[in-house]
Order: sequence, then C-alpha cells, then structure tokens
Amino acid sequence: MGKNRKLKTIESLGEFGLIDQIKKWVPSSSKQVVKGIGDDTAVFAISRGRYQLMTIDTIVEDVDFVRKRATPEQIGWKALAINLSDIAAMGGTPMVALVSLTLSKNTSVDFVKRFYAGIRRLAQKFHVSIVGGDLSRGDRISCSVALLGESKKGATIFRSGARVGDLLCVTGTLGGSILGKHLTFMPRIKEGKWIARFGASAMIDISDGLGQDIHHLMERKGIGFVIDEGKVPVSRAALMLTRGDKKKALIRAFCDGEDFELLFTISPVRFRALKNTWPRKFKTLLTVIGQVVSVSKSLVKPPKYLGYQHF
Amino acid sequence: MGKNRKLKTIESLGEFGLIDQIKKWVPSSSKQVVKGIGDDTAVFAISRGRYQLMTIDTIVEDVDFVRKRATPEQIGWKALAINLSDIAAMGGTPMVALVSLTLSKNTSVDFVKRFYAGIRRLAQKFHVSIVGGDLSRGDRISCSVALLGESKKGATIFRSGARVGDLLCVTGTLGGSILGKHLTFMPRIKEGKWIARFGASAMIDISDGLGQDIHHLMERKGIGFVIDEGKVPVSRAALMLTRGDKKKALIRAFCDGEDFELLFTISPVRFRALKNTWPRKFKTLLTVIGQVVSVSKSLVKPPKYLGYQHF
Repeated sequence: MGKNRKLKTIESLGEFGLIDQIKKWVPSSSKQVVKGIGDDTAVFAISRGRYQLMTIDTIVEDVDFVRKRATPEQIGWKALAINLSDIAAMGGTPMVALVSLTLSKNTSVDFVKRFYAGIRRLAQKFHVSIVGGDLSRGDRISCSVALLGESKKGATIFRSGARVGDLLCVTGTLGGSILGKHLTFMPRIKEGKWIARFGASAMIDISDGLGQDIHHLMERKGIGFVIDEGKVPVSRAALMLTRGDKKKALIRAFCDGEDFELLFTISPVRFRALKNTWPRKFKTLLTVIGQVVSVSKSLVKPPKYLGYQHF
Repeated sequence: MGKNRKLKTIESLGEFGLIDQIKKWVPSSSKQVVKGIGDDTAVFAISRGRYQLMTIDTIVEDVDFVRKRATPEQIGWKALAINLSDIAAMGGTPMVALVSLTLSKNTSVDFVKRFYAGIRRLAQKFHVSIVGGDLSRGDRISCSVALLGESKKGATIFRSGARVGDLLCVTGTLGGSILGKHLTFMPRIKEGKWIARFGASAMIDISDGLGQDIHHLMERKGIGFVIDEGKVPVSRAALMLTRGDKKKALIRAFCDGEDFELLFTISPVRFRALKNTWPRKFKTLLTVIGQVVSVSKSLVKPPKYLGYQHF
C-alpha cells in the first residue's frame, strides 16, 4: 500500500484471488467442456458415457524442490505424481503425458537421464505413456507435465457435490510432507477410482493443506463442515517435526500441504459399503474426520486454517 | 573435454542429441499411441476415424521473450500460438488448452490480465477453450501451454511421409522474425487443414529455421532435398536486418527460426489442385522451393545450415 506503487501486485491478491480473476478473463465457452477452470482437472465430453480429463502442473526449483535435498529421480517422480494426484481426485484413469522441461545449459546428461528414470518408473506403474514434450533453456530447472486421462461419466467426482449429512473422509496421514513425502508419495489413483465407484459426492486432493483445500469442497452455498480434530490422522513426520507436540502436529496436518491424499465426502450408507471392501483392496488408511452440515447448523465453523499459497 | 569434468553436459550433446536420448529413456508403449515423441504433436487414436493431437510448449523470459520488448498481450499470444502452430503442422483442429504460468510475487495483476487478454484473443479466433491451468512462483516469468486438438485419420500429416518426386513447399516468408513476427504471428491452422485436405505427404512448422527443420522431413532413409535458393521467400524483416544484402538475408531465412510457417511436401499433381484453390482461400504466400530426391541422385545435398538449438 505504498504511495508510489502504481500497480497492484499478485501477492496482494493472493493465489486464489488471482485464480478467480483469471476465470473471468478466460471464459471457457465450448459445449464440450463439462468443467473448466476450478476443479482438479478440466473435464470434457468425448463420447457417450466417457469423459476426458486433462491437467497441467509445474514444479520449479527452489520452490517445489531443492536440488541438494532431492535426487533427480525424485524430481521427475514429483513432476508426474502431482498430476496423477489430480486425476485421482476425479476418480479417473491416467493415460498419456507430455513433459516440458526447462534446464540450464550446464545441466548434466546424467541428471536428465535420472529425472526421466523417475518419471518412467511412476508412469509404468500406472500404464501412462510419455508421448511428447519440449525442452527449454532457463536459469533454474522447472518442469511442466500435462496429463490426459479419462473417467466414466457416472463415476467422475467433482469438488462441488457435497451434501448435508455426508461424511468427510481422508486417505492416509497428513502433515510433515517436507520430510520427504512430497517427493516420494504414491498418487492415490487406485483409491480414487474405488472411492468414485462407491459413489463419493465430492473429492479433492490435498495439495495446499487440509485447512485450505476443504474450502474448495464448500462451493455449494449453504454447506459447512464440522471436523473432529481428534480424528484427523496426523502423520509421524508431523509429530517428528514438532518433537511429539500433538497440538502443533495437528496444526501441521491442517496447514503443511503437499500431502497428496484424497479428501472426499460420501453418504453414511455408501461409506459403510466402501469401508467394508477397503481393507481387502488397500493398505492405505481411511478415516472419517467430520461431517457436512448446513451452515445454519454449523456451530463449529471450519476455522480458516492457512494452507499454502504460491503468492 | 576438460580433465576435471565428471559429467557430460546437455550442451555438449545438443538439443536434438538430448531428445534422441530421451526417446530411449521413456518409450511410449500404449497401443493407443499412434505417434509419440518425435513429431509436431503426439497422436493417439480416440475413436474410429479420429485422432487426438496433444502438444506442450514452454516460453521462458529472456530466452523466448524479453519483458522490455514485448507487451504482456504478445507474451500470452506467443505462449498459445506456438502450440497452435504444432497442431497446424499436423493438419489438425485445436480444441482446448491448459495454461501453466510461473510468476514472481511482485508481478502486477495488470500484467496477468493483459497476458490472458493476449491468450484469449487468439483462443477465440480458433474457438479454443482455456479449461484450466496452474500458477507457480519463480524468479522469471515462464508459461507452459498444453493444447489438445483433433484430426481426421486420413488427413493427419506426419513428418515422415515425404516421397521422391514430391515438391517442397512453404507458406509465408522466412527470416527476421526477431523484429516482431515471433510475438505476433498468426498460426497457420486454416492453411494447415487445407494443405492436409489436399494430401500433403509430410509437414512440419518452422520453429528452429528452415535449414534445421528440413532435416526432420528426412526421417525416411534414402531421401534428400534439392532446394532452389533463389525461390526461398525471404521476408522483408530479414532484408531490413541485413540492410538489403540478399545473400545474408537468405542465410537469415534459413537460420533465424521462429517463422512458424508450414514446410510441407506434396506430389506435383496434388500441388496443382492445391495451388488452384489457394488464392480464393488465403492471402498467405505459397511457394515451391525445392523437390524431394533420392539421396543417390541428390547432387546438391541440403547444406547443414544451422538453425536454433536451445542448448
């Protein structure tokens, strides 16, 4: 708010304020587009009963990873994994990816080889083909991956479907991903498809932190959440970072971000069916942490925990 | 080749040497994939008679544009246009795009608004929907656009189909794009579709310079090109840059790059049909600059003109 500042910066607007603006600046008009900006992936109708999903995500050196603390394989893994996580959050199946890599001239060939080994290992795991890309020059390493997937029309889960009475559930544990999980996590593709199959009403992947991402599930007016803090699955990493202080670790579980777990809502009846099949299919933890309530009844409004914002 | 250098750098390998390596590191295995790394776009079968095309391209500040010499609208325009040009080179129709933008915190909201205005203006021109994206933080501005399009199976033009006896043709004029064209060019989408419809045998867009990109049309063994240098359509910008020196301007037409014109091969019979319809459809120049010959007959081998390499 200095006197001489002529133009508002994006920092003053914040990441989500900026995204809201961008939505107005580039309306997506095509009839084919089922969902444009504002969900985990874009969704468009490709044939009867089938949706196509498309997402892009960029990681930048010294923001999303630090060279000294990440192996080249981990950087490649993360570049693809964050996109897979977006497909997972729709209940979709990933198909093909493009990789655009920006490198400095003096990058070693060995780095690039190991970077692609990381991408390849993850791609093979989910039968994703790397079908193209682009190389650019820059001072710092950055990588954009665009990923195309598909989903069944009836089993595609958006952010906006939560209904009063639904349970709020999360996979895995939260917090402290900076200790390593943010570079090595396994995208919840299989879990996401299974959850979608059992009829989740809304879903998102936790990239900016539970406390922030839950707000994206409140797009529908009149709904809120009650979260039982005692039930939030705090990770061991979060407890390590706070030296066993459970209260501080809980804050980390809400705020740290980059957990890449799935946060979803589902009716109690459907949850029961899901829960019954879960242990046979997955080792991943599945926890009910709260419930969807109407805002008028929501005595405990979800606190505005701060998660990660890029600006 | 220094004694103390432990690891080979990507600069020593060159951009195309590196791409050849990457192809080996990430084989694309899916049956759906018609063409993986190595053409203007990836191509995969989506339904009978229809191909899907997908491409990604990144522009980086101080490499692909300079803030002081480009308006925000031009930067946005270029970010989308280079991808449209890749779809054009396949004879395809662009559909939806994702935009991943990396910005520094102190970027003005006005810059972002004008950047998207540039994208929007071009997107509307070709009925492309901007359906999503991503925001990242970085010291320099960079932007990756992923673009999805489609083409008819029978009218999709690859780089590899040139046949002995075909004519070598180019749209527009070449050289000197640094004077402005690289920021303001109109992607040859309509021309590309028209050329595909008339049965071109191979096509590429000129991004790295005619002298370099023509080598990508020689993938099929045993073929070469004879180029009539006198027929190469040298741009006014190239002549301006060389103060009217025609010989130097010709070198610029071969080497400058970022012309984003279409270079294609087509049989003489088909070319005649194409040429007859062209003036009614387009104002864009269409020039025959040479012919495809068998390497044994190629007395004049195409010289290894150097175009642009990122590393």
